[in-house]
Amino acid sequence: MINRIPNKEDIYVAYHKIKNNIHRTPVLSSTTINEMVGGKLFFKCENFQRVGAFKARGATNAALSLSKDQLRKGIATHSSGNHAQAIAYAASQLKSNAYVVMPNNSPRVKINAVEGYGAEIIFCEPTLEARERELKNIVKKTGAYFIHPYNDYDVIAGQATAAFELFDQVESLDVIITPVGGGGLLSGTCLARNYFSVDTKIYAGEPEGASDAFKSLEKGEIVPSINPDTVADGLLTSLGTLTFPIIQKNIEKIILVTDKEIIIAMRLIWERMKIIVEPSAAVSLAAVIKNKESLKNLRIGLILSGGNVDLNHLPF
Amino acid sequence: MINRIPNKEDIYVAYHKIKNNIHRTPVLSSTTINEMVGGKLFFKCENFQRVGAFKARGATNAALSLSKDQLRKGIATHSSGNHAQAIAYAASQLKSNAYVVMPNNSPRVKINAVEGYGAEIIFCEPTLEARERELKNIVKKTGAYFIHPYNDYDVIAGQATAAFELFDQVESLDVIITPVGGGGLLSGTCLARNYFSVDTKIYAGEPEGASDAFKSLEKGEIVPSINPDTVADGLLTSLGTLTFPIIQKNIEKIILVTDKEIIIAMRLIWERMKIIVEPSAAVSLAAVIKNKESLKNLRIGLILSGGNVDLNHLPF
Repeated sequence: MINRIPNKEDIYVAYHKIKNNIHRTPVLSSTTINEMVGGKLFFKCENFQRVGAFKARGATNAALSLSKDQLRKGIATHSSGNHAQAIAYAASQLKSNAYVVMPNNSPRVKINAVEGYGAEIIFCEPTLEARERELKNIVKKTGAYFIHPYNDYDVIAGQATAAFELFDQVESLDVIITPVGGGGLLSGTCLARNYFSVDTKIYAGEPEGASDAFKSLEKGEIVPSINPDTVADGLLTSLGTLTFPIIQKNIEKIILVTDKEIIIAMRLIWERMKIIVEPSAAVSLAAVIKNKESLKNLRIGLILSGGNVDLNHLPF
Repeated sequence: MINRIPNKEDIYVAYHKIKNNIHRTPVLSSTTINEMVGGKLFFKCENFQRVGAFKARGATNAALSLSKDQLRKGIATHSSGNHAQAIAYAASQLKSNAYVVMPNNSPRVKINAVEGYGAEIIFCEPTLEARERELKNIVKKTGAYFIHPYNDYDVIAGQATAAFELFDQVESLDVIITPVGGGGLLSGTCLARNYFSVDTKIYAGEPEGASDAFKSLEKGEIVPSINPDTVADGLLTSLGTLTFPIIQKNIEKIILVTDKEIIIAMRLIWERMKIIVEPSAAVSLAAVIKNKESLKNLRIGLILSGGNVDLNHLPF
């Protein structure tokens, strides 16, 4: 297990460790979107990743860092989102057990997905306190290891492999941009840039309705997300104590976008690229479109973070 | 211009002629769908093709077979579907003019797409007679060359390049399957199989509500499609005099599927593969699922014909 900021070797190791359990996702482009934006956009399709999101990388890397003895006891987390599926998936791959604490008002489609990988779900009241209490209980009872969705160096090293691959797949990116929620993907991207593509600038996209990262950068300390409200339901959480310093030190800027801009970008990706991305993934393109004047003629890598949407409840 | 069944060289020539104007589309797989079906499925993603459908191949190849003088006069067709966009696209690429006769009740989204490529649209009453009359008028007036959506050997040779690429991308396919409407894609696939992958068997999927190809094979002559009714709106037309004999001679069988089965297959592709396909494209997977017992452990290539759907009117 990594107990300091992951270095170059940690990312190589993570890449090779998780290679058999995750996809090396393709990079796609769209002539129409390039013409609209006036730059060259390269979309790293983590919506095609196992479990439909980059989260499979971090969860798998963290699980693979545990001892055999620990894996026999299992892994646990509380989440109703992609990290829940990622933990369930990692456990199923490693023949371990997954315990996932989920709010009892979670959508059926998410519950089914986690159950589909064979995880045990522990339902709780939909409050942070109830979640944490139930997680503590299950960890105490089973000895399972809690893998945090982002505030964990092994998770960060795992998420870094997305940008690591993208730098290998596309040369000379001027800019790389990711969405930011808890900061796992963004901090991992910062590290990958520092080690493998020093001339690339890092941007992040964040919903106006969950702008804690933007405020945290402004204030120079973590500003927690209070009552966030956005269609990008994967970006509701606050930055962590491990992700914030990495992000603070490395990124150029955070671009805030409205829900309307996110939905327009999402629909553009669906209609023009014929791929399914979730609202959180479209935040990067929304941010690029909003800043297209300053990004003219640049080569821009965008990490499409995931593609898990409920087709019965589309935002358009 | 080709005036007999395209031979091996014609397909090589078509491939190289259209190469700069079309995408070599990727081939995707899904672990989940493979497990469901019990075979190895390889999806050739023509939904990622220019204009969102394989039709760009045939239209471009046919347009590139015309003289410079003819291209100055333009090309024409009557269609409200993907062929209309393909003709408009081909003309825009070759700096020619496109004249597209469309029924005046065509959906706005399709009209916009054709206009987006700079084609001139001639609206007509929504009857076959009106379409053909208006097409004749515009051809007479402009000297434009009518490119038929499928009953044209240059179009067939162009469509054949999809399977040609697939055979190059995936080795040793036991089966290749396409949807069948007018038979351009299917007859092109037959030829590509004959020249480049003789051991592969050819299946086709067809909607029960538009089963003219199934009936034509049964009867041994072309049975026209009368009042077809299916969610797969790209497969309403009847086989042509050029496509039918090729299909009749080469395919193993046509598998009929219901609209319900098409919609289930379509949703499965959206949810599991995170890509957008139109109902017509999902017909192949629906057919494979329906016949999974007899396809067990086989390597199956499926051509996902297109991805043009109106996101405001999804069938689920």
